[in-house]
Amino acid sequence: MDIESKKTAPIGVFDSGVGGLTVAREIAIQLPKENIVYFGDTARVPYGSKSKDTIIRFSEQIIRFLSTKHVKAIVIACNTASALALEAVRDKFEVPIIGVVVPGARAAVTTTERLKVGVIGTEATVKSGMYTKNIQKMNPEITVIEKACPLFVPLVEEGFREHHITAEAIDYYLKSMKNTGIDAMILGCTHYPLLRTQIQEYLGEKIKIVNPAYEAAMDLKQLLEHADMANTGEDLCSKYEFYVSDAAEKFRQFANSVMPFDVPRTNIVNIEEY
Amino acid sequence: MDIESKKTAPIGVFDSGVGGLTVAREIAIQLPKENIVYFGDTARVPYGSKSKDTIIRFSEQIIRFLSTKHVKAIVIACNTASALALEAVRDKFEVPIIGVVVPGARAAVTTTERLKVGVIGTEATVKSGMYTKNIQKMNPEITVIEKACPLFVPLVEEGFREHHITAEAIDYYLKSMKNTGIDAMILGCTHYPLLRTQIQEYLGEKIKIVNPAYEAAMDLKQLLEHADMANTGEDLCSKYEFYVSDAAEKFRQFANSVMPFDVPRTNIVNIEEY
Repeated sequence: MDIESKKTAPIGVFDSGVGGLTVAREIAIQLPKENIVYFGDTARVPYGSKSKDTIIRFSEQIIRFLSTKHVKAIVIACNTASALALEAVRDKFEVPIIGVVVPGARAAVTTTERLKVGVIGTEATVKSGMYTKNIQKMNPEITVIEKACPLFVPLVEEGFREHHITAEAIDYYLKSMKNTGIDAMILGCTHYPLLRTQIQEYLGEKIKIVNPAYEAAMDLKQLLEHADMANTGEDLCSKYEFYVSDAAEKFRQFANSVMPFDVPRTNIVNIEEY
Repeated sequence: MDIESKKTAPIGVFDSGVGGLTVAREIAIQLPKENIVYFGDTARVPYGSKSKDTIIRFSEQIIRFLSTKHVKAIVIACNTASALALEAVRDKFEVPIIGVVVPGARAAVTTTERLKVGVIGTEATVKSGMYTKNIQKMNPEITVIEKACPLFVPLVEEGFREHHITAEAIDYYLKSMKNTGIDAMILGCTHYPLLRTQIQEYLGEKIKIVNPAYEAAMDLKQLLEHADMANTGEDLCSKYEFYVSDAAEKFRQFANSVMPFDVPRTNIVNIEEY
């Protein structure tokens, strides 16, 4: 690819399902000139309870699919896949790949003053301990408390954001976290920003919420500028394409509630063929 | 296969994950001489929110895998796959295949006196309307009220059976159902028998619970006897094999809490290759 076509090439963004839309949304807001190809693995969602080998295999298939769209960079907009598969796929593919864990960890390190950080995520992300490892690599004096909240994803996906069952679940999972002295809390799953208001209210204003989706968009911006790959066209209308492995219409409806524009169409891909 | 080896051949049982173990348990209890090969599609669980085409494709892959184990009959121990894929796969494969929907519907028809039946299940099962269709094919005068309860599966899988969040969810989903005059309630998802006590308590004794897992085991018994395929060996110790597409150890632990015997080992299969 020559430099000019590299600049206009799209960013590939993928997730196990709809959660990564919170990352695509941040990219659309922070980098409004970039084109995006989004893939949601709705046929195999959720990733959070699956094993490392499986997550790597799924991620490789998706990267092979995104490569057919000539993406110039890929953002793994899924904490579980970032935690479990990023290193493996970086070794295997030439396209630059960014995850959400390192940017999220870095933001927490600069946010915490008490050197005590909380992380909530899926079972697989927490089990991997990747947030703790990355935070302590940057500052070994920081204590990290991780907690899996496996019900949050189905609660968000089933539209229970405002329901008091969700309030109960927040209390159930975060009660022990609340009084540990943390002053920063990483939303270590891309669905959780959709519960941000409720979580912030429960934890109180003294605990600052870190959203890795926002941080990953910032990292992407830097990467594109440094590599001279940012889209600098003047009169471009950005193009967003959405692909899923299943249930396109349900995805489209959810996407419309998350993205800052209308999602007109979602395409189905048989991802197992890649 | 000659008649004698057909008799000792195993029963194939499959589900999207652990839920179908409630069906395998019923088969183990009702047909203690039969060998069982169980497959749980833990890499692609849940099926309940996926589309018909995807469920058919997944079911075909699993039936091809079970065929390599020379099963003499297959039980689709998953309401979603029974509702969406049974007809398609029956046309395609020679091995006799039983689902859970028809046996469950038949039991409800003989149970209801007021001619009013409730059905709870996943989104996909309810959307298919297969319970209503099958019940009204047997007795068009029966009114059927179906309701999707998408949080029940994650609540069971995350070990919240006894927690008051589950009681809240039961109240949330079943409140409208409780006073409709139904006198039979089909547990139209294989996970739900694991919430049977809580659901029965909430609904009260006047509403009889119908468990399709039990009914499917009874149908299987009849099928094997009529086709002269029942295992009649005298001194056999039945063999149970468990295969999953991911997270074998987590499956084994769950299986141990459901099955009436110790599950020693679970094998991983790359189901996408079938």
